[in-house]
Amino acid sequence: MPVKLLFIGDIIGKPGREALSRELHRIVDRLYVDLVIANGENAAGGFGLTQETAQDLFKCGVHVLTSGNHIWDKKDALDYIKREERIVRPANYPEGTPGRGATIASTPGGVKVGILNLEGRVFMNNLECPFRCADREIAKLKEEATIVFVDFHAEATSEKVALGWYLDGRVSAVVGTHTHVQTADERILTSGTAYLTDAGMTGSFDSVIGVRKEDAIEKFVTQRPSKFEVAKKDIRVNGVVVEVDEKTGLALKIERINIAV
Amino acid sequence: MPVKLLFIGDIIGKPGREALSRELHRIVDRLYVDLVIANGENAAGGFGLTQETAQDLFKCGVHVLTSGNHIWDKKDALDYIKREERIVRPANYPEGTPGRGATIASTPGGVKVGILNLEGRVFMNNLECPFRCADREIAKLKEEATIVFVDFHAEATSEKVALGWYLDGRVSAVVGTHTHVQTADERILTSGTAYLTDAGMTGSFDSVIGVRKEDAIEKFVTQRPSKFEVAKKDIRVNGVVVEVDEKTGLALKIERINIAV
Amino acid sequence: MPVKLLFIGDIIGKPGREALSRELHRIVDRLYVDLVIANGENAAGGFGLTQETAQDLFKCGVHVLTSGNHIWDKKDALDYIKREERIVRPANYPEGTPGRGATIASTPGGVKVGILNLEGRVFMNNLECPFRCADREIAKLKEEATIVFVDFHAEATSEKVALGWYLDGRVSAVVGTHTHVQTADERILTSGTAYLTDAGMTGSFDSVIGVRKEDAIEKFVTQRPSKFEVAKKDIRVNGVVVEVDEKTGLALKIERINIAV
Amino acid sequence: MPVKLLFIGDIIGKPGREALSRELHRIVDRLYVDLVIANGENAAGGFGLTQETAQDLFKCGVHVLTSGNHIWDKKDALDYIKREERIVRPANYPEGTPGRGATIASTPGGVKVGILNLEGRVFMNNLECPFRCADREIAKLKEEATIVFVDFHAEATSEKVALGWYLDGRVSAVVGTHTHVQTADERILTSGTAYLTDAGMTGSFDSVIGVRKEDAIEKFVTQRPSKFEVAKKDIRVNGVVVEVDEKTGLALKIERINIAV
Ligand SMILES: [Fe+2]
Ligand SMILES: [Fe+2]
Ligand SMILES: [Fe+2]
Ligand SMILES: [Fe+2]
Ligand SMILES: [Fe+2]
Ligand SMILES: [Fe+2]
Ligand SMILES: [Fe+2]
Ligand SMILES: [Fe+2]
Repeated sequence: MPVKLLFIGDIIGKPGREALSRELHRIVDRLYVDLVIANGENAAGGFGLTQETAQDLFKCGVHVLTSGNHIWDKKDALDYIKREERIVRPANYPEGTPGRGATIASTPGGVKVGILNLEGRVFMNNLECPFRCADREIAKLKEEATIVFVDFHAEATSEKVALGWYLDGRVSAVVGTHTHVQTADERILTSGTAYLTDAGMTGSFDSVIGVRKEDAIEKFVTQRPSKFEVAKKDIRVNGVVVEVDEKTGLALKIERINIAV
Repeated sequence: MPVKLLFIGDIIGKPGREALSRELHRIVDRLYVDLVIANGENAAGGFGLTQETAQDLFKCGVHVLTSGNHIWDKKDALDYIKREERIVRPANYPEGTPGRGATIASTPGGVKVGILNLEGRVFMNNLECPFRCADREIAKLKEEATIVFVDFHAEATSEKVALGWYLDGRVSAVVGTHTHVQTADERILTSGTAYLTDAGMTGSFDSVIGVRKEDAIEKFVTQRPSKFEVAKKDIRVNGVVVEVDEKTGLALKIERINIAV
Repeated sequence: MPVKLLFIGDIIGKPGREALSRELHRIVDRLYVDLVIANGENAAGGFGLTQETAQDLFKCGVHVLTSGNHIWDKKDALDYIKREERIVRPANYPEGTPGRGATIASTPGGVKVGILNLEGRVFMNNLECPFRCADREIAKLKEEATIVFVDFHAEATSEKVALGWYLDGRVSAVVGTHTHVQTADERILTSGTAYLTDAGMTGSFDSVIGVRKEDAIEKFVTQRPSKFEVAKKDIRVNGVVVEVDEKTGLALKIERINIAV
Repeated sequence: MPVKLLFIGDIIGKPGREALSRELHRIVDRLYVDLVIANGENAAGGFGLTQETAQDLFKCGVHVLTSGNHIWDKKDALDYIKREERIVRPANYPEGTPGRGATIASTPGGVKVGILNLEGRVFMNNLECPFRCADREIAKLKEEATIVFVDFHAEATSEKVALGWYLDGRVSAVVGTHTHVQTADERILTSGTAYLTDAGMTGSFDSVIGVRKEDAIEKFVTQRPSKFEVAKKDIRVNGVVVEVDEKTGLALKIERINIAV
């Protein structure tokens, strides 16, 4: 039996959350999705995640939230993510970091799915090696789950593509996040891992990657710090659906989604 | 009459050049392309451009070559690009930089097309402001051409999307290059400018953005300098076709291409 | 007659301001200083400058405040620096930036001194070229003043030393700021310009460049955003005294100061 | 009995090596130095280290060579540093990196000295955490040696000062390298560790941190890659002498040296 995973790209503030609240169930039904994973690092006002916004998203039908560099922006998340097993933060943060980098979820049909979150290092934070960290974490997840989904939250395409090949044949899918622009390079790599450089974002497309256009342009043109407000118009849900063979854990199909709501 | 511009993403070394030599004429015929623009910054051995490789590409049917940060890698290009009006380098390099940042080409039907090349500054070189430079250069091109195509060679999606909106309604198309991964966000912005964050690359897809997988992975895993060789298998042509209204200079249609050869 | 300029390195918050309020007059008297210039980008709570903190510093005996990347941190400074001729921000911010990049001050003896502020680009903001900007601004200052002092607010030693040599013989002194650690390379370059890579800071030395040690170490060890508080113990005044020949505008002597208060 | 360690800042190419060959014995005699440690990452033509250049330096009287990010520039060093126990490369490179990150040397009087090399991560390579790596490596060195000297090869002053405080009381000295400009902040920290942000360089001071002035300025002004040649005039030896209490391993005195040769 194939298992269908839906992964939703970075949810940007209230517009993104509201879009999912209205549309997620419909999408899940239409596409026969078994498990919904979503990146929530920008779900609270564009920066970070709070207990409340996370609960909102779980209520909409998200089963597991991944994250990235912005997960630390709201201070109360530090406590919350310690207790909430359905939220992962990048596994390659240093020892002692609150929360977990990987988790196991179950589909309604009882199939276990390992979810691993990693963060890139090129142009980003100074973290532990995501390649070595993946080796370790995947070994652990594989003790419990045949299907493993990796959200690689990274800036540089080279680092993302390299990790895809590095894990090819060892996980079900490697999907990137963080750039907020969906890439068109979805494919199943030679040894069976589904790959997409970036899943895109869920929020306003009348924006600069979720932020009001005027705010973003002002920042580039003035080179001074400027206030970033979440944009509100032209909302779309970006993500990817990966169909996985339950027996092998390898991918059968990968398809991008980009739905105007 | 609509004018059809084909833009080809970064051509990576010999495999990329050979693919174009075999396929470009066929693509041009099939898609009724009027003018071919291609990014040549990686055409010579993966790094830079030489007179010979540029001539190769012009023979294949490329009318104008754009470039980016790697254009300076082969020393003999410095002289050559001074004389060759069909090659542009980013316009926002400092005064005194060899070559030109913008040029005018003509379709076989005699329609003039302005081509402008810019480079981003986020995570890249310390250049002049691409936004202000665009203002200046577009004003000059518009004296001669109604149609203007912009290749914005940049790393950060935010900077690319911001420039798209900044120029919306003032140019025919803003298409990004440099990340070597095609994005799926092609659209015509509110005021009529066609936009795509990255056109992708023309070269081996059994690779990390054109480089041999093993070489790229080794670099990330060892953090030591490592030799980068151009990969050779699974060659594809990435790019975008933009249809422009000759009278207004605004876009009628934008379509990505991703052709296995 | 030699003119003696005292330049004070980045003043860090209240501890730095209080140290100057107690000690500056004494230092000025003891060293026969004619003009006091100080970098104020961290004077208000460690980040930015407000009208009040600037007034404090002028009252202490500072004649001109220079700044750097942190000058924009306190929003009300934007208005204030437009009106206040005794404050400069880096001149190579883009056209339209509030405030001025250079100013002219007079010693009590009536000698005019041009003060120019520039910001580096390596590992910093994407500004206009500081080398070309210096050419332009110095030409203007030289119409009114023979003596010109340059505060180059930059991270990379290579960029700072390069600007020193680039301006050698054309200005009285090039002194760096921003790293908050005084360097030991003071000298008069071949053509007569006094040079020092960094003037250091005025604030707590029981700290990590002005910030509480615990806060800074936590940031490095956790790689998460952390609160930075201004440290309070072991206060020192760092700076440099440059003696300039009034006729030629060239340096006669350069001497670092590092005074525990 | 106090033990006197001389540490020499980054040796730049042939001019730096020749200066040591002429002067090191004299300096050692005059200052009663027991052990000479030197940073050799730029000893071979300004970039990297070869077996030959290392042998040269050992012959001059250097007992242990530390290094940094440039150690990998000359390919043949990879093999050589595996065999040579007197060379260390930063310990926080990933597992499997050739060579060692720490070593033990003995003074002529038979006192063991642990030498640890670390590299910063801010604006540099993506390495393992230097703070945690220091904890591990120092514990190992302390099993054999009471005296431990740390060369922290890093760019940002904040990271360097933070590591100094982090290791205060646990090692004899933390001395920085990499910026090639000597800082003036030598001191013994509260718990007994000698500290200096940067030891400076040994090579031409008629240069931009060792490189010909014209080459460096051209790079900044053109933003194109440019050839860097080692500068040759105005040679100085930069470094620091640390006097350590043999019993406690804590510092008694720290003094910078800056000798024109
Ligand atoms: Fe995000
Ligand atoms: Fe992110
Ligand atoms: Fe490229
Ligand atoms: Fe590029
Ligand atoms: Fe500062
Ligand atoms: Fe600063
Ligand atoms: Fe060095
Ligand atoms: Fe270095």
